Amino acid sequence: MAERSVVERDATEREAPEDVSAMTPARARALFRQGLRVPTAGWCAGWTQANIVAVPRDLAYDLLLFAQRNPKACPVLDVTDVGAVSTPLFGGDLRTDLPAYVVYRDGEVVDEVTDVRSVWRPDLVTFLLGCSFTFEDALLTAGVPVRHIELGRNVPMFRTSLDCRPAGALHGPLVVSMRPVPASLVATAVRVTSRYPAVHGAPVHVGDPAAIGIRDLDAPDYGDPVPVEPGEVPVFWACGVTPQAAVRASRPPFAIGHAPGHMAITDARDSTYLVP
Amino acid sequence: MAERSVVERDATEREAPEDVSAMTPARARALFRQGLRVPTAGWCAGWTQANIVAVPRDLAYDLLLFAQRNPKACPVLDVTDVGAVSTPLFGGDLRTDLPAYVVYRDGEVVDEVTDVRSVWRPDLVTFLLGCSFTFEDALLTAGVPVRHIELGRNVPMFRTSLDCRPAGALHGPLVVSMRPVPASLVATAVRVTSRYPAVHGAPVHVGDPAAIGIRDLDAPDYGDPVPVEPGEVPVFWACGVTPQAAVRASRPPFAIGHAPGHMAITDARDSTYLVP
Repeated sequence: MAERSVVERDATEREAPEDVSAMTPARARALFRQGLRVPTAGWCAGWTQANIVAVPRDLAYDLLLFAQRNPKACPVLDVTDVGAVSTPLFGGDLRTDLPAYVVYRDGEVVDEVTDVRSVWRPDLVTFLLGCSFTFEDALLTAGVPVRHIELGRNVPMFRTSLDCRPAGALHGPLVVSMRPVPASLVATAVRVTSRYPAVHGAPVHVGDPAAIGIRDLDAPDYGDPVPVEPGEVPVFWACGVTPQAAVRASRPPFAIGHAPGHMAITDARDSTYLVP
Repeated sequence: MAERSVVERDATEREAPEDVSAMTPARARALFRQGLRVPTAGWCAGWTQANIVAVPRDLAYDLLLFAQRNPKACPVLDVTDVGAVSTPLFGGDLRTDLPAYVVYRDGEVVDEVTDVRSVWRPDLVTFLLGCSFTFEDALLTAGVPVRHIELGRNVPMFRTSLDCRPAGALHGPLVVSMRPVPASLVATAVRVTSRYPAVHGAPVHVGDPAAIGIRDLDAPDYGDPVPVEPGEVPVFWACGVTPQAAVRASRPPFAIGHAPGHMAITDARDSTYLVP
């Protein structure tokens, strides 16, 4: 559980200064650039949030292939040119404009920071991957409650016993996010999220955490625990932290990820990723 | 127009020996392995057909990124491991089990053959990309006629004046396939094909060929011409020959593609790529 400290909110996390739901991506990124560190669930409603993972160019093919082979967990929204710190999708600076980052060396977490300029390398390629926060606004609109937003927490995430399909040097387990859903609304949650295949889409698992190797819903591997109330079912979606679990399992020399739940807020509308 | 000879049916193309629509993928691949050379439109109804392009490993990242950046034209269905000649999606031998191949050196077509074992290299990575033939069965079921199947021809394909988003060493124009659709059925054709985003999905252009740089519908850059009858509209879908147009434009040292319209017939059902 060593990496739990990476994502639990700690004393350095501050309250956001204004209504975060109505904020623009540019404003949110400016706050994060100034050092605000906070999970981004519920921020900038209607704007797409993204997972990031940056690897040296010589690992980029394996990572892109890993993403292609595990599309539910790793839906690629954009990839930077080598060394670039922004993309058409993300007008900010990828080194400073997320709330927090995790730095890996040989698969170990060596740092957790709000700015990665000091460890940035010109050979890095950064991947932006879809995030399930994108469909939470649609869930709320459809009347499906989202517990971690209600509680002002980060979403709970778990490493599962399901293996991703490996690619070159990369292998590792599927990571999932969990949302408790009232039994009567599970079908609605499936239907709504199915319409967002580019941001994890439909759940990968409904109910029975043990069947996918999750022993304790109160002890997530990343993020904050949330209670599952009587009459609710734990519903699991593939999670864009999966590449970071692959970094941990496969131990490449260097990688940077976002701190789970502390996402890149992009300039794309959620509706971009809605299919008819 | 030098490459038109690549795809026009010529004297070496033979009639298929049995009902091709009802054939299994394994049976079709066996016939192609024995040397049968024929466009695959209408073959193996319900089974997914794929474009292929094989490049050396050192170009594979650029090609995978090119595909990711141009997903309507280059929907990746599978990628082989380096040097592998089959994948979970395609149980045959990628070097022999397509009806015909095009071999490129420095972007020029240097050979067109039914077997590429003599030029195969151990460093090749083969991409399987979605093909619009996949949704033709659904179009027919919805009552939308498919002219090139009616006429027993290859589909007409055109290089457009639209540029793909480049990636590394690869750039080039979007290639499209064209089907004439009765005006009253254009909306149906859009609706039906929208449900197959992994195999090019909805049209990229409806009507007015000149607007995308197509001067003469009777002179396709690949495949056979088909007539557009009065009351019909030419409808254009992104085409998986696009990577081969990028090879021509970008001139990498070596690449292999399928002969346009002469596809890999996979072991996946079309329904795999149907979204709700």
